[in-house]
Amino acid sequence: MALHRLGGQTVKLDNKPCIIGRASVVGQKESQGPLGEYFDKIMPDNLWGEKSWEKTECRMVLEAAQIALMKSNKEATDINYMFAGDLLNQIMTANFTARTLGVPFFGLFGACSTLTESMSLGSIIVDGGYADTVLCTTSSHFCTAERQFRFPLEMGNQKPPTGQWTVTGAGAIILSSEGEGPCITHVTTGKVVDYGIKDVNNMGAAMAPAAASTFKAHFEDTDQGPQHYDLIVTGDLGWYGRQLTIELLRKEGYDIEDRYIDCGCEIYNQEQDIGAGGSGCGCSAVVLAGYLLKKMDEGIYNRILIASTGALLSTTSNQQGESIPGIAHAIVIERRGE
Amino acid sequence: MALHRLGGQTVKLDNKPCIIGRASVVGQKESQGPLGEYFDKIMPDNLWGEKSWEKTECRMVLEAAQIALMKSNKEATDINYMFAGDLLNQIMTANFTARTLGVPFFGLFGACSTLTESMSLGSIIVDGGYADTVLCTTSSHFCTAERQFRFPLEMGNQKPPTGQWTVTGAGAIILSSEGEGPCITHVTTGKVVDYGIKDVNNMGAAMAPAAASTFKAHFEDTDQGPQHYDLIVTGDLGWYGRQLTIELLRKEGYDIEDRYIDCGCEIYNQEQDIGAGGSGCGCSAVVLAGYLLKKMDEGIYNRILIASTGALLSTTSNQQGESIPGIAHAIVIERRGE
Repeated sequence: MALHRLGGQTVKLDNKPCIIGRASVVGQKESQGPLGEYFDKIMPDNLWGEKSWEKTECRMVLEAAQIALMKSNKEATDINYMFAGDLLNQIMTANFTARTLGVPFFGLFGACSTLTESMSLGSIIVDGGYADTVLCTTSSHFCTAERQFRFPLEMGNQKPPTGQWTVTGAGAIILSSEGEGPCITHVTTGKVVDYGIKDVNNMGAAMAPAAASTFKAHFEDTDQGPQHYDLIVTGDLGWYGRQLTIELLRKEGYDIEDRYIDCGCEIYNQEQDIGAGGSGCGCSAVVLAGYLLKKMDEGIYNRILIASTGALLSTTSNQQGESIPGIAHAIVIERRGE
Repeated sequence: MALHRLGGQTVKLDNKPCIIGRASVVGQKESQGPLGEYFDKIMPDNLWGEKSWEKTECRMVLEAAQIALMKSNKEATDINYMFAGDLLNQIMTANFTARTLGVPFFGLFGACSTLTESMSLGSIIVDGGYADTVLCTTSSHFCTAERQFRFPLEMGNQKPPTGQWTVTGAGAIILSSEGEGPCITHVTTGKVVDYGIKDVNNMGAAMAPAAASTFKAHFEDTDQGPQHYDLIVTGDLGWYGRQLTIELLRKEGYDIEDRYIDCGCEIYNQEQDIGAGGSGCGCSAVVLAGYLLKKMDEGIYNRILIASTGALLSTTSNQQGESIPGIAHAIVIERRGE
């Protein structure tokens, strides 16, 4: 069997690729949530002086990448590979950002699982000695996502309680073969899991089975239970999806509840009219880049297991009556010396 | 510098991950072209008994994957990772195929560069000892692409001479750490290159600068010129883009013309009313999986440099007046012992 495989869905990274830089850019609503103080840059409004929300989303990613580069004392020319994706058709935000940065680029689509998808591939490639420095970015913007996936914002549509609010945010992470930051030690790659959910306003239920499946695979592959981690994190399941994940894993014999948070539940106050919580690629990206890694720096958390979670649908697949499968990619992030 | 890096955009794969299985599934039009006899399966019509062209495209990929698995004496459970993408919004073809196969899945979007993007990542991960067996798939379908990117087929729109014809085809490649097949020795990852083309009916011109940029980087990084290869291949530039690539590289001091083919120029007869040639993710996928690897088996080619080429646009980016950048990812495929 391949050198680094633990079997199943997990590989172990012995060379400990580490996070040497990170940044988060968010909108006003996100800045007003409980994690507001942790983000690097707050946009004054949803357009930020651009002519379209799509152009704003590109600027958000670019600024996040530039701040992360600055923090890690790197230039764009130091980047061996950029791994990036977003929710927009043909991942145009990532494409245009890669054009501006002028770096070798692998475009990804994993819906809202993109953050840990990009970090999975980026850290494997650094670990294997194929890159010294890798940039991972992802983003979402409430206004670009709503009008692409749902309805024109001008219609003022309302959502049912299970509906979630797409985070306006971009996150950038720089991985390196050398440095002092927290390192990636394991990568558990998700399978596409489908419980037959067809309700586009209940993404949490669509993604929770994928999160539970990936965590179960991780626990089995590593022969470690939830207690091995200070914190277990999912991307954007929201309050309903979070509860479902707890219950699905309990049936499998794993109790994660006492150490489990979902980024979609953390990013907003429930008074902010956000339905069942935050969603979007940007959700786990800014919560990890802004909040969680800061808490690791402070020694609050030493070892976390995080899985960004994606709901795989398009307007076409939905109109054709297809169900919405989910996918979740998990990585382990550890402080040095822990 | 990282162990396997040659510098610039290229890494060298010392463990020679090899192609142990491949398959191609195409439509009627492709079967009637000059390469018709090389494809594994020909669909009887564009729907193949399914209820929508999108469902047909999923079936095409699934059948290609199953044939490739059969040829390599593997089961789906042997697949450590699937790398796949397509042209459809949110790469739904790849997502649904991964759901059916039930394997760990990394979703990619590189437009028509997806074949070599998937093989780049797949071969690096096998080379590094993170996987024993990887499945790479990609696809396009004339009918799903036309209605998503252009106009309803029922309108019977005509194209200008620079317009290209989207290939209806799916390709699957199985990479392994062990075996006798041709192996991947180098990976040169593309940057997003933009010459300001805005004409959606001139994709060849949009992608040619990216192809030339990646080949130039490859020649510089490896310190080898075009003469090092029996054959140099691009994905789907068509006749105009092919000529432009030759001219752009000539300006850089590299003459590739005597050993250069474009899959988009090879797959159809010019009498088939296909404009400037074939295009789509499936184009280079079926030409490589069906034709080129067969010619390598026969000893006609021993060392080829192939770059699938992608035009990065969405209907939204186009409507917002953005130009169409391109990207091209190159890999070197060598016969054992050459």
